[in-house]
Amino acid sequence: MTHFYAYNPRSATAESEPYAESSEAEIDAAVRAATAAAAAWASAGGTARAALLECLARALETSREELVSLADRETALGVQRLNGELDRTAFQLRRFASLCRAGGPFEAVDDPAVGGAPPAGHPPMRRLRVPLGTVAMYAASNFPFAFSVLGGDTASALAAGCPVVIKAHPGHPALSRRTWALAQSVLAELGLSTGLIGLVQGSSPAVGLALVRHPAIAAAAFTGSTRGGVALWKEAQARPVPIPFFGELGAINPVLVWPAAQTDELADALAASITLGCGQFCTKPGVIVLLQGADTAAFVARLGTALAQQQPHPMLTAGMREAFVAGVKRQLAHGAKTLVQEADTAQARRPFLAEVPAATFIAEPELREEVFGPSSLVVHAGGAAEAADALRALGGSLTVTLHGLTDDAEGRATLQAAMAVAGRVLFAGVPTGVAVTAAQQHGGPWPATTAPQTTSVGDAALERFLRPVCLQDAPDWVWRALPT
Amino acid sequence: MTHFYAYNPRSATAESEPYAESSEAEIDAAVRAATAAAAAWASAGGTARAALLECLARALETSREELVSLADRETALGVQRLNGELDRTAFQLRRFASLCRAGGPFEAVDDPAVGGAPPAGHPPMRRLRVPLGTVAMYAASNFPFAFSVLGGDTASALAAGCPVVIKAHPGHPALSRRTWALAQSVLAELGLSTGLIGLVQGSSPAVGLALVRHPAIAAAAFTGSTRGGVALWKEAQARPVPIPFFGELGAINPVLVWPAAQTDELADALAASITLGCGQFCTKPGVIVLLQGADTAAFVARLGTALAQQQPHPMLTAGMREAFVAGVKRQLAHGAKTLVQEADTAQARRPFLAEVPAATFIAEPELREEVFGPSSLVVHAGGAAEAADALRALGGSLTVTLHGLTDDAEGRATLQAAMAVAGRVLFAGVPTGVAVTAAQQHGGPWPATTAPQTTSVGDAALERFLRPVCLQDAPDWVWRALPT
Repeated sequence: MTHFYAYNPRSATAESEPYAESSEAEIDAAVRAATAAAAAWASAGGTARAALLECLARALETSREELVSLADRETALGVQRLNGELDRTAFQLRRFASLCRAGGPFEAVDDPAVGGAPPAGHPPMRRLRVPLGTVAMYAASNFPFAFSVLGGDTASALAAGCPVVIKAHPGHPALSRRTWALAQSVLAELGLSTGLIGLVQGSSPAVGLALVRHPAIAAAAFTGSTRGGVALWKEAQARPVPIPFFGELGAINPVLVWPAAQTDELADALAASITLGCGQFCTKPGVIVLLQGADTAAFVARLGTALAQQQPHPMLTAGMREAFVAGVKRQLAHGAKTLVQEADTAQARRPFLAEVPAATFIAEPELREEVFGPSSLVVHAGGAAEAADALRALGGSLTVTLHGLTDDAEGRATLQAAMAVAGRVLFAGVPTGVAVTAAQQHGGPWPATTAPQTTSVGDAALERFLRPVCLQDAPDWVWRALPT
Repeated sequence: MTHFYAYNPRSATAESEPYAESSEAEIDAAVRAATAAAAAWASAGGTARAALLECLARALETSREELVSLADRETALGVQRLNGELDRTAFQLRRFASLCRAGGPFEAVDDPAVGGAPPAGHPPMRRLRVPLGTVAMYAASNFPFAFSVLGGDTASALAAGCPVVIKAHPGHPALSRRTWALAQSVLAELGLSTGLIGLVQGSSPAVGLALVRHPAIAAAAFTGSTRGGVALWKEAQARPVPIPFFGELGAINPVLVWPAAQTDELADALAASITLGCGQFCTKPGVIVLLQGADTAAFVARLGTALAQQQPHPMLTAGMREAFVAGVKRQLAHGAKTLVQEADTAQARRPFLAEVPAATFIAEPELREEVFGPSSLVVHAGGAAEAADALRALGGSLTVTLHGLTDDAEGRATLQAAMAVAGRVLFAGVPTGVAVTAAQQHGGPWPATTAPQTTSVGDAALERFLRPVCLQDAPDWVWRALPT
């Protein structure tokens, strides 16, 4: 039996109790149990689905102290942030619950019969949506609640009527097991199959690959690195029956700042955003594109000062620490010049800031790779056209932020360039902090996601796990046989 | 320069003038011209988009006699059917035009600011959709109007704000060129870039592959064989930047008939549906699952008699004729017993009907492969449970038709099994004849399509070519800068 160990970011050691990796037989059993529960759950109405989601939210809140303490030990993200994240996770579960009560998953397009010959005439038709089936859910390291066992993917899949088998992130195994145990209790209390929410775990790629390969898995949702996500996405396509794969792979999140917006306040806000969660956010501003103005030098200086003062907490895992150091080196090796580089402590990577002309940024693909951690790259653009070229060179991103954009030809062209590469375009504030709302779009063109037409946050996340079916000439009893 | 020749189904010869295959340089030029027109077309409002679609519909109708005559010479589908198909194609263009006028592509989810701290509080957000960019459109052989140059894929992509580059089907090259020339005139008359609708052609796979590989292609839509579709789909995934690929690959379209529905009328209707268009429809009923009843033998006899009387027209291409003969042989080699096999004429393949027990059908994967042409396979099921097992063995299908289903446990279980494998479930009539409506779902789980959450017919076909973008804290001028 293979074992793995949890990493303690504060002591930079992996001295936990040993955790057994799920075997192929255990993965198979979890998927079978989930799939055995699929038909009953697909038939469950909005009230039953909402009840489960609400009870899961309450279970998180009831065990808050224990869960946050476990999470902090395993992630070092801090109790304040983790309490906030637990709030958000409960909010998200309740939001999908209210969508279920309002009939969201059961929305239908009714198309009454039209008399006469085709093409205008047609029989009565109704288009509704059915759950895809058992979903493989890959938890992220950096959001131990919101993108983990009972996070948005699980909440939206359950709301859609799909069972889930969760691949826990090995960065927080004790928290994952404890959260899952709470979910099992909730299922049992509600008289639902405990197979509806399965858990597998391990630190080797084999566990995740076995899960996505399982013939009974009908879709997969993933939040994490490009490398890990693309490997699983390829496997999902290589199956005898390929399946939808919703991968959120991170992004560079460029922030464009016109001279009029180059203020101390924005510099301070960006410094905080760059180091929030030790820069381990998929919406971290990885590139700051500055259009040259009278105050640009002062803005850069202020950004550097503000950044140097930040004291980020330790990074989540040893692998992430190493990747961050390698990413900084890569930028310096390809023409970036250091602006801020504070000495690291044993546990923590300190903030890093560098700068580069836009022409170099556009010419060097290595400068356009994501660096996960507390760093950003200032890109000096000669004008709006060059700034837009930098955006296009970057390609797909979860967000693009535009500060100081004005209503003129230049502004409109920049707007178009931003919308062409981003899932979300901000005109104020910073990209970190992804609201769970009706209009949220947490996605974006490749390589930000593997499925740019979907979102992993917000109400539309539900749609990932539904498939349309048109019923033609259905007798009345059919409508009574379907859940509402 | 490579050339290819059009096939004349009636004479079973390929004696047309030579058509030059598009070179890599010509493909590149077409994609560049389309992409150069993309920004202006994405900015075009609903009125401008509707005007183009309506003028294209009118151009088809104005040149009806010439186009139908060309189409009949190249496809032998008959002038009555081809006139009907042209009507449908014009109807479809106008339907997408009216969706544009009604603002369909510009629909947005408005999410006003909510005060207070997160997770409940959030800035003002609006989720709208942007066109994906230049679409590669692969035309089908069997619908020279409705799934060809100005067919549903082109209409929905243009409505979404995307330019198209069409890979014409080599089965009807003269018609494709003529239809495209009409479209070019319409674009010129409206003062639009003629690059907006591009055409490439050829009979070798290289042409289609070069198109889907082009870096400026942002999405692809395909209607045709599983083999051709899967090859292009794989190429779309293998690109440095993978793109959405909407492939409709055909289906078996099982029809389940309970004893009470085993009537002469249904037998006659099925015989006509099986041979409609010489069985060259992706919704042809390829399998008739019969639940044993007192009249089952009489129903099978009636189906055989009705089928033997059908006089299908010649098949579209020599390749299809050969594939049909091979498909019939494959069924006979794997346990199917002949019920009807009329002697073929030189040009036409005559109807074929065979039967097999459900257990054999479930055991032999070769019996579950699509046979494109005027044939069907009767599957004798011992009961509803075995009929549902046959559905599950088939896997994804564009349609499942249920005749005589009743409101009881058996009926509900069969309904669930049908909805699990089909994009459209019919409770009356036959699956051929796909209405262009708001509720249509012409799609289904793999292998019916590569993108089971989308449809290639009906209003929702438009959604394939749009991607959501959320605008956060946008100033008012931004809304004025976007098309409506």
